Amino acid sequence: MKVMVGRPGTWSGLLLRTGQCASAAASMGVMLSALGFPNYTAFCFLIASMGLQALWSLGLACLDVFAIKMKRDLHNPMLVSLFVVGDWVTATLSLAAACSSAGVTILFARDQPFCGEVSQLSCGKYEISIVLAFITWLLVALSSLITFWLLASA
Amino acid sequence: MKVMVGRPGTWSGLLLRTGQCASAAASMGVMLSALGFPNYTAFCFLIASMGLQALWSLGLACLDVFAIKMKRDLHNPMLVSLFVVGDWVTATLSLAAACSSAGVTILFARDQPFCGEVSQLSCGKYEISIVLAFITWLLVALSSLITFWLLASA
Repeated sequence: MKVMVGRPGTWSGLLLRTGQCASAAASMGVMLSALGFPNYTAFCFLIASMGLQALWSLGLACLDVFAIKMKRDLHNPMLVSLFVVGDWVTATLSLAAACSSAGVTILFARDQPFCGEVSQLSCGKYEISIVLAFITWLLVALSSLITFWLLASA
Repeated sequence: MKVMVGRPGTWSGLLLRTGQCASAAASMGVMLSALGFPNYTAFCFLIASMGLQALWSLGLACLDVFAIKMKRDLHNPMLVSLFVVGDWVTATLSLAAACSSAGVTILFARDQPFCGEVSQLSCGKYEISIVLAFITWLLVALSSLITFWLLASA
């Protein structure tokens, strides 16, 4: 398998996983602190999806730490296939959650002037949480491309 | 490059592109025929995204017909790279449009009972259009995986 920046079991891979975990946890935390989120399915889906993403990235970050400490090679085709499937599923869910929440927030902020009228909506916090969710998706998409490339070029 | 079902310049590739083009055009048509769609950014984004997808898939379907008729090989790495980038961009846009519209429709149908109360909303048509957009995304995601695999394993 080719030597690539960000591949599993390296310092760059660990940095990428830590970034994914931190931004997913931050997105979830900001949404949980916003008023009125439980009334909207899209925002609840964002929290669930970011929670799953944070757990997956944390698990892989721990595996990276183990591989670096023990000087183990994680480039077994079976293991890389598992990373590919997990990364693709979580990346798709993260993008779906970020986009559905963005659709609802744009409706509140632009299409209907709910943000100015309804005091139980924390539109600013919804927006921050969605931006963090998009950053998470970008980082996971990068990991997915790296692992898929590793698998395809094996 | 490996021999794969659905690769550019083959009958299976042409079938995949035709399916993408047909479902994107149907999704766009159903949304255009729905009442009240211009008031919502997410639905306008869905129409724009499905329009772009239909054009891209139609262009590649024509290229497939040309390759089959002229018995030309489309597996030039530069051309495959172009397909990969185009497929990834349009697939991401299709998923984003489908999810943001789904978020808004779920808000109308479940979170707030707008569908039953407001007669200017064609909720049934929004749902059909979104299902067709998800089918389009699945077909484009399949093409993207095939072209990316072809490029990575070249």
